[in-house]
Amino acid sequence: MIKLNRPVYILSAASVGSVKEKEGPLGEYFDITDTNIKFGAKTFEAGESEMQRLALNTALKKSKMHHKELEAILAGDLLNQCISSTYGLIEFDIPFIGLFGACSTMAESLALGSILIDSGHFTKVGAVTSSHFCSAERQFRFPLEYGGQRSPTSQWTVTGSGAVILSETDSPDFKKPKITEVMFGKMVDKGIDDITNMGAAMAPAAADTILKYFRETGANPGDFDIIATGDLGFEGKRITENLLLSEGCDIREKYNDCGLMIYDCEKQDMHAGGSGCGCSASVLCGYFMKKFDIDEYKNILLICTGALMSPGSVMQGNSIPGIAHLVRIEKS
Amino acid sequence: MIKLNRPVYILSAASVGSVKEKEGPLGEYFDITDTNIKFGAKTFEAGESEMQRLALNTALKKSKMHHKELEAILAGDLLNQCISSTYGLIEFDIPFIGLFGACSTMAESLALGSILIDSGHFTKVGAVTSSHFCSAERQFRFPLEYGGQRSPTSQWTVTGSGAVILSETDSPDFKKPKITEVMFGKMVDKGIDDITNMGAAMAPAAADTILKYFRETGANPGDFDIIATGDLGFEGKRITENLLLSEGCDIREKYNDCGLMIYDCEKQDMHAGGSGCGCSASVLCGYFMKKFDIDEYKNILLICTGALMSPGSVMQGNSIPGIAHLVRIEKS
Repeated sequence: MIKLNRPVYILSAASVGSVKEKEGPLGEYFDITDTNIKFGAKTFEAGESEMQRLALNTALKKSKMHHKELEAILAGDLLNQCISSTYGLIEFDIPFIGLFGACSTMAESLALGSILIDSGHFTKVGAVTSSHFCSAERQFRFPLEYGGQRSPTSQWTVTGSGAVILSETDSPDFKKPKITEVMFGKMVDKGIDDITNMGAAMAPAAADTILKYFRETGANPGDFDIIATGDLGFEGKRITENLLLSEGCDIREKYNDCGLMIYDCEKQDMHAGGSGCGCSASVLCGYFMKKFDIDEYKNILLICTGALMSPGSVMQGNSIPGIAHLVRIEKS
Repeated sequence: MIKLNRPVYILSAASVGSVKEKEGPLGEYFDITDTNIKFGAKTFEAGESEMQRLALNTALKKSKMHHKELEAILAGDLLNQCISSTYGLIEFDIPFIGLFGACSTMAESLALGSILIDSGHFTKVGAVTSSHFCSAERQFRFPLEYGGQRSPTSQWTVTGSGAVILSETDSPDFKKPKITEVMFGKMVDKGIDDITNMGAAMAPAAADTILKYFRETGANPGDFDIIATGDLGFEGKRITENLLLSEGCDIREKYNDCGLMIYDCEKQDMHAGGSGCGCSASVLCGYFMKKFDIDEYKNILLICTGALMSPGSVMQGNSIPGIAHLVRIEKS
């Protein structure tokens, strides 16, 4: 666990979603939603880029910043060679630090961005990520036209994006939440090779990071308003709880998963829940940030979870390692 | 440009290559070369992972370190979802920070790793990357069996890997080179959409970063033993020189490109030169580091260049943005 020497402020954040995200329980918390799944672009992939552009633009607008005030953008996504981030963020014309953490990218970018600022070499950086149901389905699973049946443990990739402006200084009214602790996770592989059960593949990594965090810090789950994993869904959340319980760590009272919060899984027929980089990113930048705004949240742990695999690696017989990065966000 | 508050030492480095790299002009500088293009693994992709494992293992051995002394690994590669890094580095069981900078990854990981150490939160981190001709060809271009004809501006993806151990402290004999300055580049897109001319796509980004570096620092090209770009090849090197000359910046006396150094392009029929994350990584960790060892180099600039594209993005009509990250390495 890394305790920052000085807190890093979340000056602003913005979340973008599409139809199913709007219809879900957190729909009202999105800054922008569009009924056009391509966000006015020609392809799903270009639509995903457009979500990143919109998210960062909106976050900049909220903190009344010119984009040139950002000294770097940290971003990544799920598409091959992270092209959503490339084409979505190129026009900001800012030094670009590309990341790949699969669905853990939001916490990875926040953790790295916080250390860049804590180092004294940066004063303001952006952290952005996205995912898109249609671009993910055709890249990782089947073309949508195929109409493949989904397994009970399969998750629904969130069509969404989140952008955060990190700053060395608070806003003039001293009201912004701040990142105080970060932790980079290890890759954990327990042999899951079922690409329709990412929750199970990622859960051991989530449990590993959460357990280490509580052991190293001596913090109590009760200290937090919420302990949220990124996109484990029903299956992964249950496994994470059980793995932690077997180590004597009970977080259930405060624990939820962004993938279960973003959709009404039963009504919306989402099977095991939401997933994708855009899941934790849009829940953080939409729902969580607005809970901080109204002082309902004062202290949260966000553990974004990623499954490190490609369709090719699974076809070649590899199992699916997971990873989970953690950030602690507080408000005084 | 970021001037580190304290230098970050390169405690050790190791480079891995295959047959064509061994046969090239820098062949003797590789730590490990294997005549088996799969490095004993079952697939090209698994062979690429094995190169990363070998490179990091060898670098650790050189500095007599147990892998558990590393507090983080920063790594990435060209394969979809960066699976070479995942499967190559998972067994080290160390917090993992995944990057995607295309072929600029070596400088990106060194720059980020240096700041992590400069921040005081880390004392030792690893930086690793790789590329593999066969895995890259079948992912980005054609299956090898197709035997497609290569265009004059096409480059040959280096089958190679490089690993660096960065440390807050020098070796006991105070003889290690150190990173003193780093610079993250911006994405630059000049409209090149020819996937067989990556040099032209990346050159404007290289020129942008190099020009900014010299303007901000007031340094002279003559201050350096070598100014090396990552993998621009003949075409990209020529464009970079011309772009810089048009701005009054003449680096030609000290300038070379790792993609031109690693192969004898004419004899080895390499067309425009070498490319890939493994190109600058293995030239740095092999040739450059050994030149530092014998005090022939005291001061170098490495500018790793990346083309931010996927086969899908090009097929959808996007042009290819480039990016270039810079590190300055010195020895007292």
